[in-house]
Amino acid sequence: MKKAYRVAVVGATGAVGTKILEMLATSTLPISDVVLLASSRSAGKKLTFKDSQITIQELVPEAFEGIDLALFSAGGSISETFAPEAVKRGAVVIDNTSAFRMDPQIPLVVPEVNPQALAQHQGIIANPNCSTIQMMVALEPIRQQVGLERLIVSTYQAVSGAGNSAIVELEDQLTAMLAGKPASELQADILPCSSDQKHFPLGFNALPQIDVFGDKGYTLEEWKMVNESKKIMADEQLKISVTCVRVPVLSGHSESIYLEVSEETSVKELQAILQAAPGVILQDNPSQQLYPQALTSIGEKATFVGRIRQDLDVSKGFHMWVVADNLLKGAAWNTVQIAEALHELDLVRVP
Amino acid sequence: MKKAYRVAVVGATGAVGTKILEMLATSTLPISDVVLLASSRSAGKKLTFKDSQITIQELVPEAFEGIDLALFSAGGSISETFAPEAVKRGAVVIDNTSAFRMDPQIPLVVPEVNPQALAQHQGIIANPNCSTIQMMVALEPIRQQVGLERLIVSTYQAVSGAGNSAIVELEDQLTAMLAGKPASELQADILPCSSDQKHFPLGFNALPQIDVFGDKGYTLEEWKMVNESKKIMADEQLKISVTCVRVPVLSGHSESIYLEVSEETSVKELQAILQAAPGVILQDNPSQQLYPQALTSIGEKATFVGRIRQDLDVSKGFHMWVVADNLLKGAAWNTVQIAEALHELDLVRVP
Repeated sequence: MKKAYRVAVVGATGAVGTKILEMLATSTLPISDVVLLASSRSAGKKLTFKDSQITIQELVPEAFEGIDLALFSAGGSISETFAPEAVKRGAVVIDNTSAFRMDPQIPLVVPEVNPQALAQHQGIIANPNCSTIQMMVALEPIRQQVGLERLIVSTYQAVSGAGNSAIVELEDQLTAMLAGKPASELQADILPCSSDQKHFPLGFNALPQIDVFGDKGYTLEEWKMVNESKKIMADEQLKISVTCVRVPVLSGHSESIYLEVSEETSVKELQAILQAAPGVILQDNPSQQLYPQALTSIGEKATFVGRIRQDLDVSKGFHMWVVADNLLKGAAWNTVQIAEALHELDLVRVP
Repeated sequence: MKKAYRVAVVGATGAVGTKILEMLATSTLPISDVVLLASSRSAGKKLTFKDSQITIQELVPEAFEGIDLALFSAGGSISETFAPEAVKRGAVVIDNTSAFRMDPQIPLVVPEVNPQALAQHQGIIANPNCSTIQMMVALEPIRQQVGLERLIVSTYQAVSGAGNSAIVELEDQLTAMLAGKPASELQADILPCSSDQKHFPLGFNALPQIDVFGDKGYTLEEWKMVNESKKIMADEQLKISVTCVRVPVLSGHSESIYLEVSEETSVKELQAILQAAPGVILQDNPSQQLYPQALTSIGEKATFVGRIRQDLDVSKGFHMWVVADNLLKGAAWNTVQIAEALHELDLVRVP
């Protein structure tokens, strides 16, 4: 096991990249050196890590020479091109994009849920989609103890999941609307999905589209949650349908989850299971108006669960409200947590 | 049948009351006179109806002398006290509060769904909860044609449903947050529920509480949707569970609805049913990114339905996204629509 690692961060100026630097700064991972890589446009700029300034270098294959761990968060096409180059030079890649997630050879890991999958890695580990991760943290302990048959999920996703430019777009829209500008005159160039044809304002709106549309009328974001959940839980029989919605929230994804379990259980038992679950903070007391909120999840690494209640008609059906900081547990923290797990398991090496 | 009616509006200065005046101004209902009633605090103020100024009078029982139709939207306790006084003096009451909705003697009406219930009225007709109404408009035509077994609903409700002061609170919070004020320093005195103990900011947040908590961990807003739906559809066997959530949207309630139908059907057939349904506008074309949005529903009387797709696991399960202006179809328009229906059926009289 190495004493300390040379860590590269690809896409360090992005919404997730800056949070990865924050998470690395307080991580238990022994780090000798942090190298920042970005497009030639950002090269030469400086970012702060701990108390020192680090100059961003241009992302070229040779930049990965001598790197032990490379954390990618710069878009799927960058990962497709450069992750294999990093591995070729001996770096283990943890990739935050959707590029490799459904590749059966590549582990897709939430450390609280399936750390054992890390042992199979061939150089690349995929970090799941933000909205998938928090759901897995909340549901896997339940699945382990009372089984999980079916999920119906509606999400309330924050704009930071679409990157810094989307945050600015929302803020600009709201500023204009609060000054009395009519909705028909608002500028919208990014949301719901920068690569799609039409753009709509998110200010004072709810947009039932995240990513482009795919098969059967479901968006790719919805397919990600469906397919990634089955892979992470290693359960192809799990029934799951999802509706993904963007709401005018800066950070903190919320999810309204209906679950059907295999064995008879109770709200009390589910609360006890989640109280003991790694990475979960139970916030569930209606008499005290205690439930998870996007705004209070910001900056936290945990997944918050509350409003657990039995379905009014189906005895094995339950509802819950699950919230996490999408930039931390949904992205940067899960990535750094994977790095820490790799270190602890002595797996920071390309086999 | 009268040639024209004397109409009283109780609570005309509120978020819903002002919209009731707007809807009356363009209604087909023959109106001879509009009388505005409010607390002594508002009495003497003037509001515009069509092109004339009307002075608000104090709400006292005698104010209902000579009134044919009284539209109440000033809170449950006002309705409980004054609606019987209005009826005693010969006025038919359409009540926008939850005071009488579950009274088995009182019709609870969505004109597209159960106009036949109006014939039973004894002087008071209840207007359903905003989030119930739009769901009924979208689902009743489906229930009629392929049957309805089960509903699982997650709502994305706008702040205007909580009144004008809640709108101001949200706008103030957002103004402060956009200027850099931290969330922990925000002022919150109204939401999630003015009558509850704790208050939380809605700005850049999602609050899974609307109204106070009731039995089994469900809020009263959730119970309203459950109980009112069964009453309006006259189907006590309908399985329905709901999660109600407030989002930082000014107007336009959105709902993510999972439905299980009785007979095998298809997305195409459901689209055809809704295309022909009264009060529904189908906005459902993923290839054109066409789906209902809260922002584009504002000012419209219709209920918008889109994102209709089959559940990935259950052949008789479908998902849809239903949006309406909560102040119009969810309140003021449904109220005035009931008044128009009463007129057409010659039921503007206390039996």
